Amino acid sequence: MPQYDLPLPELERYRSGVEAPGDLRWFWDSTISTARSCMWMPKVERISTPLELVDVYDVTFSGFGGDPVKAWYRRPAGRSDDLPVIVRYQGYTGGRGLPHQVGHWPLAGYAVLDVDSRGQGAGGGAVGDTADPHGHGPSYLGGFMTRGLDDPQDYYFRRLLTDAVLAVDVATILPGADASRICVTGVSQGGGIALAVAGLRADLAAVMSDVPFLGDVPRGMAMASAGPYLEVAAFLASHRTKVGRALATLAYVDTTVLVPWATAPALFSVALMDNVCPPSTVFAAHNAYGGPASIEVYPYNDHEGGQFHHEAVQLTWLANVLDNLAG
Amino acid sequence: MPQYDLPLPELERYRSGVEAPGDLRWFWDSTISTARSCMWMPKVERISTPLELVDVYDVTFSGFGGDPVKAWYRRPAGRSDDLPVIVRYQGYTGGRGLPHQVGHWPLAGYAVLDVDSRGQGAGGGAVGDTADPHGHGPSYLGGFMTRGLDDPQDYYFRRLLTDAVLAVDVATILPGADASRICVTGVSQGGGIALAVAGLRADLAAVMSDVPFLGDVPRGMAMASAGPYLEVAAFLASHRTKVGRALATLAYVDTTVLVPWATAPALFSVALMDNVCPPSTVFAAHNAYGGPASIEVYPYNDHEGGQFHHEAVQLTWLANVLDNLAG
Amino acid sequence: MPQYDLPLPELERYRSGVEAPGDLRWFWDSTISTARSCMWMPKVERISTPLELVDVYDVTFSGFGGDPVKAWYRRPAGRSDDLPVIVRYQGYTGGRGLPHQVGHWPLAGYAVLDVDSRGQGAGGGAVGDTADPHGHGPSYLGGFMTRGLDDPQDYYFRRLLTDAVLAVDVATILPGADASRICVTGVSQGGGIALAVAGLRADLAAVMSDVPFLGDVPRGMAMASAGPYLEVAAFLASHRTKVGRALATLAYVDTTVLVPWATAPALFSVALMDNVCPPSTVFAAHNAYGGPASIEVYPYNDHEGGQFHHEAVQLTWLANVLDNLAG
Amino acid sequence: MPQYDLPLPELERYRSGVEAPGDLRWFWDSTISTARSCMWMPKVERISTPLELVDVYDVTFSGFGGDPVKAWYRRPAGRSDDLPVIVRYQGYTGGRGLPHQVGHWPLAGYAVLDVDSRGQGAGGGAVGDTADPHGHGPSYLGGFMTRGLDDPQDYYFRRLLTDAVLAVDVATILPGADASRICVTGVSQGGGIALAVAGLRADLAAVMSDVPFLGDVPRGMAMASAGPYLEVAAFLASHRTKVGRALATLAYVDTTVLVPWATAPALFSVALMDNVCPPSTVFAAHNAYGGPASIEVYPYNDHEGGQFHHEAVQLTWLANVLDNLAG
Amino acid sequence: MPQYDLPLPELERYRSGVEAPGDLRWFWDSTISTARSCMWMPKVERISTPLELVDVYDVTFSGFGGDPVKAWYRRPAGRSDDLPVIVRYQGYTGGRGLPHQVGHWPLAGYAVLDVDSRGQGAGGGAVGDTADPHGHGPSYLGGFMTRGLDDPQDYYFRRLLTDAVLAVDVATILPGADASRICVTGVSQGGGIALAVAGLRADLAAVMSDVPFLGDVPRGMAMASAGPYLEVAAFLASHRTKVGRALATLAYVDTTVLVPWATAPALFSVALMDNVCPPSTVFAAHNAYGGPASIEVYPYNDHEGGQFHHEAVQLTWLANVLDNLAG
Amino acid sequence: MPQYDLPLPELERYRSGVEAPGDLRWFWDSTISTARSCMWMPKVERISTPLELVDVYDVTFSGFGGDPVKAWYRRPAGRSDDLPVIVRYQGYTGGRGLPHQVGHWPLAGYAVLDVDSRGQGAGGGAVGDTADPHGHGPSYLGGFMTRGLDDPQDYYFRRLLTDAVLAVDVATILPGADASRICVTGVSQGGGIALAVAGLRADLAAVMSDVPFLGDVPRGMAMASAGPYLEVAAFLASHRTKVGRALATLAYVDTTVLVPWATAPALFSVALMDNVCPPSTVFAAHNAYGGPASIEVYPYNDHEGGQFHHEAVQLTWLANVLDNLAG
Repeated sequence: MPQYDLPLPELERYRSGVEAPGDLRWFWDSTISTARSCMWMPKVERISTPLELVDVYDVTFSGFGGDPVKAWYRRPAGRSDDLPVIVRYQGYTGGRGLPHQVGHWPLAGYAVLDVDSRGQGAGGGAVGDTADPHGHGPSYLGGFMTRGLDDPQDYYFRRLLTDAVLAVDVATILPGADASRICVTGVSQGGGIALAVAGLRADLAAVMSDVPFLGDVPRGMAMASAGPYLEVAAFLASHRTKVGRALATLAYVDTTVLVPWATAPALFSVALMDNVCPPSTVFAAHNAYGGPASIEVYPYNDHEGGQFHHEAVQLTWLANVLDNLAG
Repeated sequence: MPQYDLPLPELERYRSGVEAPGDLRWFWDSTISTARSCMWMPKVERISTPLELVDVYDVTFSGFGGDPVKAWYRRPAGRSDDLPVIVRYQGYTGGRGLPHQVGHWPLAGYAVLDVDSRGQGAGGGAVGDTADPHGHGPSYLGGFMTRGLDDPQDYYFRRLLTDAVLAVDVATILPGADASRICVTGVSQGGGIALAVAGLRADLAAVMSDVPFLGDVPRGMAMASAGPYLEVAAFLASHRTKVGRALATLAYVDTTVLVPWATAPALFSVALMDNVCPPSTVFAAHNAYGGPASIEVYPYNDHEGGQFHHEAVQLTWLANVLDNLAG
Repeated sequence: MPQYDLPLPELERYRSGVEAPGDLRWFWDSTISTARSCMWMPKVERISTPLELVDVYDVTFSGFGGDPVKAWYRRPAGRSDDLPVIVRYQGYTGGRGLPHQVGHWPLAGYAVLDVDSRGQGAGGGAVGDTADPHGHGPSYLGGFMTRGLDDPQDYYFRRLLTDAVLAVDVATILPGADASRICVTGVSQGGGIALAVAGLRADLAAVMSDVPFLGDVPRGMAMASAGPYLEVAAFLASHRTKVGRALATLAYVDTTVLVPWATAPALFSVALMDNVCPPSTVFAAHNAYGGPASIEVYPYNDHEGGQFHHEAVQLTWLANVLDNLAG
Repeated sequence: MPQYDLPLPELERYRSGVEAPGDLRWFWDSTISTARSCMWMPKVERISTPLELVDVYDVTFSGFGGDPVKAWYRRPAGRSDDLPVIVRYQGYTGGRGLPHQVGHWPLAGYAVLDVDSRGQGAGGGAVGDTADPHGHGPSYLGGFMTRGLDDPQDYYFRRLLTDAVLAVDVATILPGADASRICVTGVSQGGGIALAVAGLRADLAAVMSDVPFLGDVPRGMAMASAGPYLEVAAFLASHRTKVGRALATLAYVDTTVLVPWATAPALFSVALMDNVCPPSTVFAAHNAYGGPASIEVYPYNDHEGGQFHHEAVQLTWLANVLDNLAG
Repeated sequence: MPQYDLPLPELERYRSGVEAPGDLRWFWDSTISTARSCMWMPKVERISTPLELVDVYDVTFSGFGGDPVKAWYRRPAGRSDDLPVIVRYQGYTGGRGLPHQVGHWPLAGYAVLDVDSRGQGAGGGAVGDTADPHGHGPSYLGGFMTRGLDDPQDYYFRRLLTDAVLAVDVATILPGADASRICVTGVSQGGGIALAVAGLRADLAAVMSDVPFLGDVPRGMAMASAGPYLEVAAFLASHRTKVGRALATLAYVDTTVLVPWATAPALFSVALMDNVCPPSTVFAAHNAYGGPASIEVYPYNDHEGGQFHHEAVQLTWLANVLDNLAG
Repeated sequence: MPQYDLPLPELERYRSGVEAPGDLRWFWDSTISTARSCMWMPKVERISTPLELVDVYDVTFSGFGGDPVKAWYRRPAGRSDDLPVIVRYQGYTGGRGLPHQVGHWPLAGYAVLDVDSRGQGAGGGAVGDTADPHGHGPSYLGGFMTRGLDDPQDYYFRRLLTDAVLAVDVATILPGADASRICVTGVSQGGGIALAVAGLRADLAAVMSDVPFLGDVPRGMAMASAGPYLEVAAFLASHRTKVGRALATLAYVDTTVLVPWATAPALFSVALMDNVCPPSTVFAAHNAYGGPASIEVYPYNDHEGGQFHHEAVQLTWLANVLDNLAG
């Protein structure tokens, strides 16, 4: 994939053309408060694993509609102090994985809450354990992008983002969590969720969003040549009368209309050869972000982005952010 | 795609290794009788179209769980006599389409009931209008093959085949239908559904099944290089512990265990370069079929099968079958 | 395929750079009058089919050079009044098909003349029955785009377009045809032919051209990534000295130099992800069209364009146009 | 491409199942004698080139139907003795090329006659200059494999092979040719032509056929995954009723029924990863060859076969054969 | 990728046809003793990382020819007891990665030595830091499979496997290593290296080899459709005279001739849709293995094999093996 | 591949943004003088071939570091006068080939020196015989583009270009060479080498560079979708910290900084659909060329460029240039 999108200087100025729906604030306030109104206490069970260095807890919490959502809560073994918690959201089709799939955060002394994406978890080796008990209306393409696309109230991402917001509620009350240092992170879909959560709540300490999805969705649909944006395009290729309605629904979950409300410091990453989340859609989210934000640019990467290299960047960045917070 | 499967003489002898579950008959009897117990009367509304030669009725009938299922009922305009009814099931991802997508059967004097596949209808230009209001358990791949695969009771195809069986109930009571001449047909998924219905009810006049799906599913999963069998393989590539359970569920909907019960005369077609429904899986269904069956072999076709050419073959074949019936 | 061509506002202004050859009018006038000078009366034979609602006639008419060209003439069965006739041209590699491949127009009360493309008819399931008895010069690529490309007089499309113009002559004298209401239509190559015919004769009632081919051919050759434009590019990739001569020949059949002469009302369609007939080449034809013209834009479709959805749009549009004509 | 065909020991025993038509001998005798009956004297014009070491003559000779066929006759410059002549036939879509595309034979002291394939010559950079003035019947796929496939009399390869046989007539009377040492050679299509000519005339000194096409065509159609065999398969995928007729026509040009008549010593080559001319189809021709034959096996090559390496093998082999002949 | 190789029961019996070179034992004994004769003491430096739970040491040890080879030595932080050491080899093109890319073993209380593959480390995100200071002879394809293929003495894999054997020497003397519990593991190339090391030294406690490369290389070259076996095939596609010499060289590093010497208990994994390391090549190594061996079969996986699921299987298996050893 | 790069008028003005390193002149002067300081006399051995028209000499000369480099020196047989010598460099992965792979130049009366690319020669059928005895640092991708990329001193292309410059030294003293008429040529990589040599020495009579590689490398890395530029991009996709260093190294071998020093007349070619050497990178080199230069534009070709057609153009062009020189 060549660098097919705008030149970097234009990317740095690029603004999404998506307009926030008039009732956007109300939509999310009411959605989240409704979900909280039927919330039940999370179940947190320590499970036995072959791991000695990390304690793993199986968390079940109340998501959208009170539906049970699964997560792993992992902490450095034997630490009794309150730790910052990284809430991590998953990439498209992935789930929370197996108990021993720990990742780098706990090794660096952080607690991590790895949240399932409801219904997802059959792709890329990372399995999931959370049902999406909501059926859907007629004529759905497969995947998750077009489930309930006819109506913002029924749309899959309304449920998914609500789960994500509530996962932070849960994170603040987990055993050994420092509620003043809750961070959100994710790659691709997970990065888009993290941004949406950053827009929807003001109590986060930091946001790390890599090659994020869900920014300037109409441009994503016009420019992407692989990945989930193509599901929407394919759906509209059959359902030609539903273009307007689909774009209207998508405007409620587009990160470019949510992140202007964000306040926490944020670290983005973008890959200039990314054909799943076109660079302009990532910059569109970055350039609209309400809080302080910086972005790492990977000129020769496709959607894998900064991978392990960027993990190291994040470890340093986050330590600084939390130090400043402490200072 | 070369002719990659067994040589023709071996195909003609090929038998599926799938064994019928011990409670197969009970499973389907109870499923269908439960569905019938909550059945409501179909709604049949004549709609206005620009077509002068064909009357089109919008049918909504009670499917699995009493869920509404949509269909088009089309008849030659102005015919008042009772006509044979062709119940047609759709290919994977397709729906009943638009009112004016009539096809060839009504032109030849048949009534046709074009039945939606619940949830489907966003692929290939043929839209659908039927919801699948049932959510699903964790970790589903996308598409429809792995929805509820953990349990035969929850499996999507249990609902879909039940809808298909009940569509024949409806066909017998439609205005102007000759209940003694109900035929079922379909291509690919539609052909598989037609075969399953042929196994599950004894009152059909004829069965036409083209390049059918759902026969000898384990072989399909091992041999196909495109199409929906790959969804199951991809799911099991992540969920490695679920192979046994998945195959156990699939055994309830595999046409090779259902068609031994079939009695109506049947016309199959098979394409020797078909990489979606491998020829051996089609012959597996044909060779297990309980009633009289013949098969058209298309040596140089992929999954498009006999297409328009085979439609002409079917028109002749069906006229003969119905003549014999009448005779 | 992303939306790779110009943005929509620029497409709406886009003009082809192809210039009409100085002798363009003479070329076509002499070509057509020569063809008419050796014209013989069409043979129209009603054939027996399994269809009850539609009468099908096998038509053989005198095309370019007096060569026999095949067509199907289909009418609603039992109608004795004069009907508008839709002359339909075929997509690249397709032929008139089998007798029972009726399509939607006769169902809506129109007569249809489905015209073969000489030599074509071995692709996409729609077979053809018309020979192209003219050999060709050296070093031809295969396909039809480069047959006789060395000289406008020998070029395949000269013969094909002449057949198409003469098909309208035939349509006016078919039994039960209303010569004042002859319409032309087609998709892709068929849409390009329809536009060329619209430029070459002033007696049409309506023109419907979907994702048309043959507009601004040099841009098509530079922008397309699939389809017949690539045949010319591939030919010139070997025959590097023939670029000028090839472009000079193509200028005689480019719709953008023919449609300024058109007068009948026209409905176009264009798909913004079309990689066979790039959107700019479709707009180039639309923007040069001499008569009143409108265009349906399908933003998320590739070369399949509006398909069944657009058929419904056409049924409505054509009824209005013919009503106005009657009015 | 893996080694997808039979294991080598089975290849070495493999026999084609194609049966020689009853009138095969008569078909070719009458075809060739008819062509000879209207033969005219070849035109041989020395042309000016920038080459100093090789003289190039532009040859036009009388082919099938007396049609003019082009060839280059090349000889080492300044040689006045009679030289062996290599008649070389071209690969599919290639032509005789440009005057300076000399190849290795003249450098080794041979005269070469590079014969055009009528109509071909727009692929792979090797241009052609010979028309195929014969039109064709309806519904042809493109390419050359399906032109006139309905009838052996009309089939393109009847004309092409006749040209090839007559090229040898010409070779024997070219200035400076040693008529007792005429050899034929070619790669792929050219290798198939060379084999057919070897079967059709008894006066050759040697035959060199690399990865030859046209042997056991039905197996080629079933096994190939690229190349011209797919044209026939694609044609029959639309024209489903023509399978028998097509195979009957192809049996007249299948090398496996022609080479049993061959007597000249032959060198074959085969590549075990060849997906254009499957190894079994090459062995089928080799194993049926009437004269003494050997075969070079290239285990890790696709259709490029032995290329330059095999040229060196041929140079040595041919010198030996001609020495023996002289001896 | 379908299940393209032999059926499972035949795989379970499959034996490689590769014969051990007569001087195989001498070749490796002399190679390794030569390398040991110039060995210098490893450098082991603790480095600073953001990780709190794992100590990371940068190891530089003496490999083939005394060349410096890099590795990471990672241990649970603060553990002072002697731990079993897992020596892990890398997949093709991968390197030891970044310091924080820890993996699951240290979390389970093991020490791990992650060994670079000389020269490799620019693929898949896992960077490497080890030079291969040896040039190579003419006409090398790229990649590593054909470097020095002309001669077993010069072959890249001689150097790589020697490094791997010496890495175990190093592992036994690392601080906090329990020399009686050294295990080797790896995926793909890493799995092949682990098997070779298992054959070349008798002091291992356990061997875990996933979808291993380098078993029955000639079959790999004939069957694989992706991955490094294709490099050798591609090289021999140009260098047609070197087939014998290349196969002779490869026989020195083929795991199927080395593992008969192995004695440690081994756990294999194989994926039946693996097109990089065909299942038969994996079974060939398993079936030749000298010690006790079991194999996990993943029927629906390609070369990703068992991934995270298999890590969990390994954690359990290894704990048992080491328990038995202790017992 | 469409014409994806800038429109032709912009290409004609396009300038590379690569800046010459400050020590560029010194770098090359010292590199070449160092190589000359250890130069030994070339070995020139006439070899026996089956060719009668061309004498072939096996040349071994002293390249970078005194490493032996192989070449073929070919002359019209029996010519005793001093001839112009064409020094020809090879395309990426190709070598000098076999003795009988002569090409067109000797046929036109020129002597040719066909120079190996060290290490290369396993691709495209043209084998090589020259080792690259220099190892390389860690983490190399495969291919040749990233060998020693960390440092201009270690970079593979420093060695390759030095060999190329010294090949001209050799050409001037070959038996029968006219030292006043040394020309350089090549296609793709060979064309880039020819340009670099043209910049690095002032004694050439002519330069012919076809679809040259190595011009404006950063743009090549951003725009190419196939070929060797992708190796660098892939390397930097893993080694994200090395972008600056890699670009700094590449600036020493970028033709756009070397050709301003060129003085000999030059003929370029460019293909507008070239996805290996994007047209802008070719124009970047052409537009920066110091001497008189012209360019042939092939609008419908991919990286094959002008091929045989362009050979004919070159034969004419070179004759003129040498005539003028003589004049």
